[in-house]
Formats: sequence, structure tokens, C-alpha cells
Amino acid sequence: MLFLNLKSLQKNIFKEGSKGAFLVMREFEKNIRKVKPYVPGEQPRQKAIKLNTNENPYPPAPGVARALKDMDAESFRLYPDPEASALVEELAGYYHVRPEQVFVGVGSDDVLAMCFLTFFNSKKPILFPDITYSFYEVWAELYRIPYERPALDAEFHLVKEDYYRENGGVIFPNPNAPTALYEELGVVEDIVAHNQDSIVIVDEAYIDFAGRSALELIDKYDNLIVVQTFSKARSMAGMRIGYAIGGPVLIRYLNDAKYSFNSYTMNQASLLCGVEAVKDKEYFEEGIRKIIETREWAKRELKELGFHFTASQANFLFVSHPAYDARELFEALREEGIYVRYWGGRRISQYMRITVGTREEMEALFSFLRGYIMER
Amino acid sequence: MLFLNLKSLQKNIFKEGSKGAFLVMREFEKNIRKVKPYVPGEQPRQKAIKLNTNENPYPPAPGVARALKDMDAESFRLYPDPEASALVEELAGYYHVRPEQVFVGVGSDDVLAMCFLTFFNSKKPILFPDITYSFYEVWAELYRIPYERPALDAEFHLVKEDYYRENGGVIFPNPNAPTALYEELGVVEDIVAHNQDSIVIVDEAYIDFAGRSALELIDKYDNLIVVQTFSKARSMAGMRIGYAIGGPVLIRYLNDAKYSFNSYTMNQASLLCGVEAVKDKEYFEEGIRKIIETREWAKRELKELGFHFTASQANFLFVSHPAYDARELFEALREEGIYVRYWGGRRISQYMRITVGTREEMEALFSFLRGYIMER
Repeated sequence: MLFLNLKSLQKNIFKEGSKGAFLVMREFEKNIRKVKPYVPGEQPRQKAIKLNTNENPYPPAPGVARALKDMDAESFRLYPDPEASALVEELAGYYHVRPEQVFVGVGSDDVLAMCFLTFFNSKKPILFPDITYSFYEVWAELYRIPYERPALDAEFHLVKEDYYRENGGVIFPNPNAPTALYEELGVVEDIVAHNQDSIVIVDEAYIDFAGRSALELIDKYDNLIVVQTFSKARSMAGMRIGYAIGGPVLIRYLNDAKYSFNSYTMNQASLLCGVEAVKDKEYFEEGIRKIIETREWAKRELKELGFHFTASQANFLFVSHPAYDARELFEALREEGIYVRYWGGRRISQYMRITVGTREEMEALFSFLRGYIMER
Repeated sequence: MLFLNLKSLQKNIFKEGSKGAFLVMREFEKNIRKVKPYVPGEQPRQKAIKLNTNENPYPPAPGVARALKDMDAESFRLYPDPEASALVEELAGYYHVRPEQVFVGVGSDDVLAMCFLTFFNSKKPILFPDITYSFYEVWAELYRIPYERPALDAEFHLVKEDYYRENGGVIFPNPNAPTALYEELGVVEDIVAHNQDSIVIVDEAYIDFAGRSALELIDKYDNLIVVQTFSKARSMAGMRIGYAIGGPVLIRYLNDAKYSFNSYTMNQASLLCGVEAVKDKEYFEEGIRKIIETREWAKRELKELGFHFTASQANFLFVSHPAYDARELFEALREEGIYVRYWGGRRISQYMRITVGTREEMEALFSFLRGYIMER
């Protein structure tokens, strides 16, 4: 790998004399871990309709604003509780598990990365679907974990038999991203049950918009970890809170690794606001209901416009149009200040992912799409 | 490694029949990364004098409280700026560097752990002192980085010649912890200059209470990374903000690794409060002045009581008494609700670390120590 390093270059000229100038790599560069970083969805700064990062269109529970107003900046001089006890206990109560079954981190990305580091240390490949959350591949590369990616079927569903082979671990999201498809709990249990010698991580970032959670299986299988987040249904992406629930043995290993990495990951504001977000069950369920209602209405609108789309059970839609190129449409939307997500790549080059926003945001989207389709 | 797993045990009994019951390790356990976690200083919940984790006794800058009051909980539904631009730019302005020379993370522990992961990938050992911040060894173990630990001299100072040997990287704090000793910039530069083929990380968590920073050398050496924190002089331990400053090439690699790990590490509250903490230079300098004044007064008190201590240039004191056992004294203080830090271990078994608190907190400490010493 070459890059311009003028100082090294000059040093080299000085040392090499008549050998002349050429680009050199500094010795220390050989020992740098070079990774191709994940590219997050854009965060447009101007006024825009933002349907590109699966954020919640509604504010967090009212208790969060109150916690913020009551917060004492003076207390920031002190380290936060390294065990995040208040939040762990609130989550344990909510999900009817014991506190020693709950691990919290700086968003589910932090939790998942810690899971990769802690649990996936086999020489056998870990398994995750060919089309899925792009971070899995990034973490596997970062930690040099071998991996294989069984293909989803033609309708983008998991093929459970593909996960019966020998492996160093299994991870998949349910519902999957960006396909938005939910697998019934029976499929999930089948994969967990066939992999008693591996740890199986079910990444349930979108489960609240879908069906039964693998949390029901936690006490039955000691090789299962379920990861969830505050960024979607709890409307707290900006505060970075995620958690894993599993058997106490696995959670203890996860905590050991986390304490080794950074004892105090959750700051005081996250802890205080997080607790309030969990407390308000009614607000939480009402928010989910509204998003599902908008999603189902949006499906009918998409159908009318001739779009194909998966049977989304998430807070986003995975859509394709037989007559219009997805990248062109993505760019036309962007011109209009309507941000959705487009990746390209094998099998999904004609798909866009559209976050379910408010009814008003979705109406603006459809109004543009209607015009785009009529004009051609 | 054995541990009690009742379910596995039962399964085993069932399978093995007459072979009888014995403890088994589940297959997946072999692939778990097992680490001995760092143990942070206690966070006592009851009313106590807390001089054990080097927190600042004064509140953060008044702007932080204002930022908190102005914060809009509604915006928490959105992901934070993954580039943390506002904070990066504020820091770049303050330290007269370019934004592409600044990396921010969730406390300096997060920044340092990212540095270990990114920069220390050689088969040669990295070097750090025998007595130093205990996390360095934890990260090296976590990432399986080989390391050697040259001994500090009899007065706990760095022996710069020990860092001339071949290595895979160098890291040391300045001032060092828990010794509190500052090395003059000439010593630091000598080590950086002798290691042009390695990356040298100077961990300056306590530099604001000491002397000249290695930041002066950033543009001269492209193998240097300086790490600082908001947890000490900026009084923001509770909000978890740390940063690294270095050449743009190294900072880019660090950001690539960070984006691979977790794109959105700094939450909205940290970003908004962090900016305000940097803005108020006058408050910052006044806080440092007060802590140094208390530290120097405390040194005179310690001397009167017959304590030995290093020439601290940090916000803590590293003390020993020729007539009293350090662990006993530590425990007597703890009984009294005065928390200081004691580790034990080679070379420092007779030392305690005492954070410089307010004048009032230190007076309570000395009042107890005076009694303790008179009684015996």
C-alpha cells in the first residue's frame, strides 16, 4: 500500500542519495491494522426528509426530556457507574430476566462488536447471511475472524439448513436488514438448537416492529445471545444505548471483555435517560403502533405505484421498481432533499431501503414518486 | 478451565449414563476470549470523601450546565454526527492543529484501546513501564499483543535508554500513573526520536497539572500520538470524552478502525457538553490553578506527618509512610469513609494514591491522618 508521506520521502532522498526519489512506506505502517471502514448513512445538515438511517420519527418518551432537565451538570465531574446498574436493573425488570443476564453498551454496534471479540475466537468460520447488516463483515475483518455467508433464498429468507454445518459461531438479524424480513421463532429456535456447540447471536434491532422475540428462548438455550437497541423503537439513536440478554455465564464473559476495553462506557446522560425510556411502556407501545400503521399504509401506496417490496416487519421498507433503475431513483430523491438508502451490489442492485417516517414525511415521498413515475 | 454449568452437567449425566456426574466445559467455551478485567476504583454510593479515582473536585465549566438545559430531548431520536465535527473542530482550534489531526472517543480509555488495536500489530513486543496505568497490560492481553515492561528507576523515573531497543510500539503516560511523576519534554522527545520505526503514544491524562505537552512535537514527528482526556482537568469524567492528536495519516487509520468498530460512539449529550468545556479557557485554567495550589499545600502537610511522596505534578499524590503499613492505613481511611487507592504489588506495596480533592476534603483527610499517627 502506498501513500504520500512527504517527510519520509525527504528522509529517504537524504539517506538513499543517488538512488533518487520514490514513495516509501514508513516502517511503523507495516504494523498498522488497516480496515475498510463501514460507511454510515448520510446525516444531512440542511432541512431534509431523512428516511435513510432507520431512525424513529417520534421523540423519545417524555420522561427522557424530564431526566435531561433534572440532570445535574456538577455530577459530571464523577465517573459514571461502571456497572450501569440502574439501567441494567430497569431492563432486567422489563424483560423478566435477572440483572446478571443483561449486558449494556454504547449502542448495539458496541454490544455486537464486543460479542464478536469475546465469542468468535474459533478457527472455524462464523456464519452470517450473504445479504445482511454490513457491519458483521467489517467486524470479522477487523478481528480477523474467518467467515462464510450462506445465501438467503430467492425471496430473501434464511435457509435454516445452511446453518447446520460446522462453524465458529452464528449471527443474523431478525428481522433481517436491509431485507426487513422476519423469521418465525420456530426458524430461529431450529438454528439455535442445531448449534449447541457454537454461540448464536440474534440481532433484534427491529424486533419490536415484528413478532415474537428470541428472548423467549433465553432460559432454554445457554448458547444464545439476543441483542437489542434503544436506537429504533425507543427513539434514542442519539444517546447510544444497546444491550445483550443471555445466560449469566456468557454475560459474565462479555462484561469481563468490556471492563478490559473500557470500564466506563455508558456516560451519565445515557444512563439517566435510558432508564426513563424503558419505564414508559405505554408510550413505547403507542409509538410502535403508529409506525406499523404508517408502514402498512405505505405498502398499499407502494403497490399502487407498481413497486415490488418485501413483507416488511421492520421500521423500513425494502423496495424495487420493475420499470425504474434504483440508483437513478435514489439520486432523484436525494436531489429533492428526500434521503433514502441505496447500496448497489449483488442481488440488491435494484433495491432501495426507505425508513418509515411520519405520515407527512411519507406523503411527501409518495407525492414525489407519483410525479417521477407519471413523467416518464 | 472449569466452571459449574448445571444444564451441561445434567445433559452429560443423561448422555454418559453410568460414567456418573462430572463437570464439563461446553464446546463453545473453547472459543471465548477470557480476560482478567481491569478493576476500576470503587464508586461508593453513600456519603464519602472520594479521593480514589482522580476525579476533579470542581464542577465542569458553567457552559456545560447551560448546554444541558438547552438540550432538546427530541433530537435524541437522530443518530449523532459520526464525525463529531463540532467537538473535533473546537479541540483543533484550542490546540492549534488541523481537524484531521484530532480523533475523539468515549474517554481516553476508548481512544487508547483503539490505538492498541490499530497501531500495535507487530510480532515484536511493545514497551511500557513496569509501574504504570494498569490498563496497558489489560489491552495487550485482550488483543494478544506481546509486551515488555522496562523498570522505572529507583525514584520511579523513566529510563529513556530502555526504550532504544527494537519494539512493536511504545506507550507511557506523562505524568505517569500512579507515580505522579512528570518527565521533561526532552526525555519524551528523546524516546520519540529513537523510535522512528515505531508508533510512540504519550498518554497525557494529567498533563494540564504538570509541564510542557508532547503536543509541541506533533508536527516534528509523524510516529507520535498524544492522548488526552476530559475526565481530569476538564472535570467531565461522567461524560466520557477523550482524544488523540497526531499526524493526519495516523489519525486517519485510527478513524478507519473506529468507524469499523462503531460509527457513532460519542452521544449527542457528550458532543454538546464537550464543546462547552473546551470553550471556557479561563475557567479551565482557574480550576487547574486551584488544584495545584491544594496539591502543593498537601505536600507540606504530608511532610509534616512524616510521609514520603513523589514530586507529584498530577492531580494526585503517591505516598508512603515509613512507620505505617500502607494497606492498613488504606483500610483505616476506608472505615472512616475516606476513599483512596491502594494496589499492593511489587515495588509499590507501601504506597497509596490520593486524589487531590477540595481544600476541605484534604483537611478532613489530614485531620484523620494526624489522629491515626498520634494514637500509635
